[in-house]
Amino acid sequence: MGKIVCAVDLGGTKINTGLVTEDGKVIKSVKIPTNASEGPDAILGRIKKSIHDVLKMASLSAKDICGIGVGSPGPLDPVEGVVISPSNLPGWNRVPVVQILKDEFGIPVALNNDANSAALGEYIFGSGKGTKNFVYMTISTGIGGGVIIDGKLYSGTNCNAAEVGHATIDFKGPKCNCGNYGCLEVFASGTGLAKIARKAVESGKNTIIKDIAGEQPIKAEHVFEAAKRGDEVAKKLLDDEAFYLGIGISNIMMFYNPERIAVGGGMSKQWDILEDRVMEVVKERTLQPLWEVCPVVKAELGDDIGVLGAAALMI
Amino acid sequence: MGKIVCAVDLGGTKINTGLVTEDGKVIKSVKIPTNASEGPDAILGRIKKSIHDVLKMASLSAKDICGIGVGSPGPLDPVEGVVISPSNLPGWNRVPVVQILKDEFGIPVALNNDANSAALGEYIFGSGKGTKNFVYMTISTGIGGGVIIDGKLYSGTNCNAAEVGHATIDFKGPKCNCGNYGCLEVFASGTGLAKIARKAVESGKNTIIKDIAGEQPIKAEHVFEAAKRGDEVAKKLLDDEAFYLGIGISNIMMFYNPERIAVGGGMSKQWDILEDRVMEVVKERTLQPLWEVCPVVKAELGDDIGVLGAAALMI
Repeated sequence: MGKIVCAVDLGGTKINTGLVTEDGKVIKSVKIPTNASEGPDAILGRIKKSIHDVLKMASLSAKDICGIGVGSPGPLDPVEGVVISPSNLPGWNRVPVVQILKDEFGIPVALNNDANSAALGEYIFGSGKGTKNFVYMTISTGIGGGVIIDGKLYSGTNCNAAEVGHATIDFKGPKCNCGNYGCLEVFASGTGLAKIARKAVESGKNTIIKDIAGEQPIKAEHVFEAAKRGDEVAKKLLDDEAFYLGIGISNIMMFYNPERIAVGGGMSKQWDILEDRVMEVVKERTLQPLWEVCPVVKAELGDDIGVLGAAALMI
Repeated sequence: MGKIVCAVDLGGTKINTGLVTEDGKVIKSVKIPTNASEGPDAILGRIKKSIHDVLKMASLSAKDICGIGVGSPGPLDPVEGVVISPSNLPGWNRVPVVQILKDEFGIPVALNNDANSAALGEYIFGSGKGTKNFVYMTISTGIGGGVIIDGKLYSGTNCNAAEVGHATIDFKGPKCNCGNYGCLEVFASGTGLAKIARKAVESGKNTIIKDIAGEQPIKAEHVFEAAKRGDEVAKKLLDDEAFYLGIGISNIMMFYNPERIAVGGGMSKQWDILEDRVMEVVKERTLQPLWEVCPVVKAELGDDIGVLGAAALMI
């Protein structure tokens, strides 16, 4: 069976714990609610229990596995092994997750943030395999990323490298929650697209987006659905979305000169609709030596990316 | 005396060749014109002669030194040791500089582009000492850069990493020579500032910039001089200049999360005038964990940066 690691994907709403082989197969897993409002002690108790549970399911003990990888929301300190104060984990304040799990299981523990873990997961098990310099970009409610340099995850000086969503693409643009103005996320994230769509609807544009949303607030998915049905306003919104993503990807190439970029996250399910226009913008806007060595592909790990990313931290 | 390397700073107008000690002292040097129009064979002949000359000046032979570092305009391939086709070296087409100098001198030769060499020079001998993750940004007629990741120069997949001048900061901005629109260089380089100043003058604004320039075309230095004399239009242009640089530096932090950024190049001589406003913009626009770990400082190597950068490639 080869080496096995335990992977904990800690999120604001659920905890996904699995046993993963060194070639990236999830052999056992459990998914439990985080119940974030209960605070760190209760959550750490559930994490420990979930690890004991997957070990028992595989008839293994802690000494049979190489270690535990934990992917967590940031900010965190991967060197100290401390989760600092994630906005979706209330009450956490410099929680020494690595030491706590080491004390419980007596094996090595590695910690990094979810975007970095996902990048490493894609690099080792998915779309980044075979490269040396690789960028993973996640497009979801927000936009984040992780970068592999010379075959190693580059976390930056305090684990904040590859904040690709918050780099400015239009210095006169609207304000983002991050405090910056006109960053990529404010235009091209799922939240950004939905906000721009709501404005279009409110301004009285002739579109079926509102009808598709019905009683719900307008979301990115409603724009994609309207465009599929031929709605011109929605099609223009997606053309703009692809334009913004093209600028963002161009900037990634200018900074990192990677040999591959993978696009993941919820919105990447719509990549096929956006891809042609995105790549047109990338080629128009980027120095040719940069884009011609760097294909942009879809991430491959799908829903397992959280667990496989956490596993990759230990492999 | 310790180890000595030979350094060749090949530019479009001059070739600067020196012998450099491992602690960054230039012990002998010669500066000769490139005469770029004469093509690669003549220039390579002059480079070889300049190396023989500095060795003779120090009463050394090639076997007494560790190797030769060459900083050259790009595009080039540092792995193959080939200069591809720099725009300011007409007639060059995949010239195997490394092999040619190895054949002549029988010692190791390293090649990289001028921005990367300068970054490594600042890292080893100047403003980047003591860090692990460091970015050097040069603000001159153009804007370029180089990045050190985990203590090593990161050149990227084909030696085009850290094209910080050509990343977009305003996707609706003016077209740059690079083909992109609204990149940092088009706003904040010396050429960019001069162009914006010329437009201000042509639009009839009440400013002494034109008087200072006299018969010459308006240059960045004329704007700085006018501002020093209290010219309000020039002061506003420099306020904008600092704003653009703040956005550019913010983006560098978002991508690389470095622990220090150094600013060099001709325009950095005016850094003291720009610094306060630049840093105000950086702090307004950047995630706090990024700016609070990353001081922005002036580069230290001054006019020796070309030779010391080339030397650093070999140290």
